[in-house]
Parts: sequence; structure tokens; C-alpha cells
Amino acid sequence: MSRGEITRQAILEHAAGLATQVGLEGLTIGRLADDLSLSKSGLFAHFHSKEALQLSAMEFAAQRFIEAAVKPSFAAPRGEPRVRALFENWLAWPKNSGFPGGCFFVAASVELDDRAGAVRERLVQLQKDWFDTLAQAVRIAVSEKHFREDTDPEQFAYEMYGNMLVWHHSMRLLRDPNADVHARQAFEGLLERARGQKPYPTRHIR
Amino acid sequence: MSRGEITRQAILEHAAGLATQVGLEGLTIGRLADDLSLSKSGLFAHFHSKEALQLSAMEFAAQRFIEAAVKPSFAAPRGEPRVRALFENWLAWPKNSGFPGGCFFVAASVELDDRAGAVRERLVQLQKDWFDTLAQAVRIAVSEKHFREDTDPEQFAYEMYGNMLVWHHSMRLLRDPNADVHARQAFEGLLERARGQKPYPTRHIR
Repeated sequence: MSRGEITRQAILEHAAGLATQVGLEGLTIGRLADDLSLSKSGLFAHFHSKEALQLSAMEFAAQRFIEAAVKPSFAAPRGEPRVRALFENWLAWPKNSGFPGGCFFVAASVELDDRAGAVRERLVQLQKDWFDTLAQAVRIAVSEKHFREDTDPEQFAYEMYGNMLVWHHSMRLLRDPNADVHARQAFEGLLERARGQKPYPTRHIR
Repeated sequence: MSRGEITRQAILEHAAGLATQVGLEGLTIGRLADDLSLSKSGLFAHFHSKEALQLSAMEFAAQRFIEAAVKPSFAAPRGEPRVRALFENWLAWPKNSGFPGGCFFVAASVELDDRAGAVRERLVQLQKDWFDTLAQAVRIAVSEKHFREDTDPEQFAYEMYGNMLVWHHSMRLLRDPNADVHARQAFEGLLERARGQKPYPTRHIR
């Protein structure tokens, strides 16, 4: 990487982390200049506008998510092991992201859900890609005969995502020490239903 | 209500709605004064501080949630019908709330999850109360023999809440026309498992 590229990556690392704490709206060139002791004019030369800065921070976070959560999952064998790897890498993502305020995309989703514009549109596209990645992994598990043939991949992805959102909520807002236990129990139940086994017993030893 | 109380309620109605759009951090006495053509000094007389204003807006939203979603559910018979009523009234809440930016509490949860202070503490308490309300309705359904004896009420509440969060995400950010279908399918599956019936077939005619 050139020196300019290294600087740019360091700025984006800080910007994406800041967005997880104060929101994308709080991501101003002035705030970044203060935090990083850089000149505003230098930052403008990199990003030109607040929207371009927000978009670049989002791409940075998306790239990191792919490296931290998606790529390692594709090293797992096709079928249920890969679905499980996606789940486990996803649970580890808020910590592995290196960002201080939890999942970048959960925060951005709530912030941008009633705004218009390019940043929202990009987020929607990224979220749809992620749902598709999950659904596709489920489809493969069906074709590998790990899951029942009548498993609905979109419904599976929807329920898996719900589990992740409530886990994030339980862990970060409520600081529930049982968040991981609940998340794994919900996921095992989802897997067992997709496998077509008997209903998963709902009470477990903690 | 006295005239002062009517004014206060109108201010809080606007404040809570605004918070669903711009966040609690965007809820300033200056912004409210502009929006409502009131004097800043008059607003200070009502609320004294930004934090007090945020807390009052949250209590307003909580009271409305109780009226719109909780109380009507308790009119349903004990057991599964009440659990179902809680779910249906919950799905209807973002619209019935009268607030423009979706669920007040989903937005506040993500905004406040890494902040400290009285507003966060109050939100955590309200969220725990809501989880308890759901878990208690499940416990009653067990005692009414509608649900299996080994149903875990906290796990049920956790999964029900996950469904609501991903529904909110699918509807508001992704504008997925199938959000309601997915939400109902996930909920019916949860009910069937609690009833101890055979696994719910996962593919349905849309």
C-alpha cells in the first residue's frame, strides 16, 4: 500500500469504529480531523463530502465483515458445517470487528431505516447480499441432504438473523449473561427442525 | 387534564416521535422549540434538562406501548390466546404508536447500548419488564396446559423478541413485502414447538 492508502485505511478504521458509537450522522469531517489531529482540508481531499465519508466507512466495515465472518465460513465443508460456521463467525464478529460499539450494520440499520439516499441504498444492498449468502448456504445444505428438502432457505435466513439481532440486543443493551446460551439454543433448534428431527426440547441445563 | 398538562403531553408526543426519526440525541430543547413554535424558556420550565426531556419522552412512549400493545393483550384469555395477542399487538405497534420512525424502543436500544446514564438505565428496566411480561404469559400458557411443561419461558421470549427485531428490520430497512409472512411463520413454528406438536413444515404457499 502507498503511504496515502495507509493513511486512508487508518482514517476509515477510526471512522467506522466511531460510527458504531455515535452513528453515521455523527461522522463529520470536523470530528475526524479533531480525533486524528489531521487537517480538515486534508480530509476533504480524501473524501470530498460527508456522504462520501459515510459510504467509504461502510465499505471498510463491509470488507472487514467479509474477511472476519464470511471468508472463514467458506473454509468449512459445504452443508450444515458451513451454516454453523456462518453462525459462529457472526457471533464472534462484534468482537472481531475491532469496532468499539458492537455491530456496524445493526447500528446503521436502525439509524438509516427512515432516511433516503445513497448510504441507505448501499446498506440495503449489503444486507440483501448477506441474507442471500445465508439462504444460499442453506440451499447447499439441502442439496447435501443435511437439511430436509422442504426447508425454506429464506425463512431459515430470516430466523437466523432474528436470533442474531436479539442476541446483540441482549448482550449489548441488557448485558444478559445468558445471551450466548439463548443464541446457541435457538440456533440448535433451527438446525434440528431443518434436519427434520423431533422438536428440540426447550428447557436445558444452563 | 389542566392546560399545562395538555401542553406537556403535546410536547412529549412530538418529542417521542422525533426521537424515532433522529434519535434521542437529536432531541434538544432548541429543536423542539423550533418545531413547536414555543419559547426555549417555556420548554426549560417543563423539562429543566435534555436528559429530563429524553426520560419524559421515553415514559410517554412506554405509556403508549402499554395502552396500545399490553393492555389489549390482557383482554385475551389466559394461555396461548394471550401469547398470540401479545404477538399481534406487537406487530401492530409501530403503526399504532403514531410515531413516524418505527418502534421507539428498537431505535433507542441501538442508540443507547454503549452509553451510560439514567436514560439507558430506564430503557434497560423497561426492556426487562417487557421480556418478563412475555415470559410470564408463556408460563401461564404452560399452567393452562396449552404449552408443554418443559417449555422454557425465557427462551420463548428471547426467540419471540428475535422475530420482532428481524421483522422490524425487514419491514423498515429492507421494505421486504414478505416480512409479515416470515414473522407469522416463525411465530407459528414457535407455538407449535411449545405445544409439542410435530415440527412445523418450513415451506408454505405464499
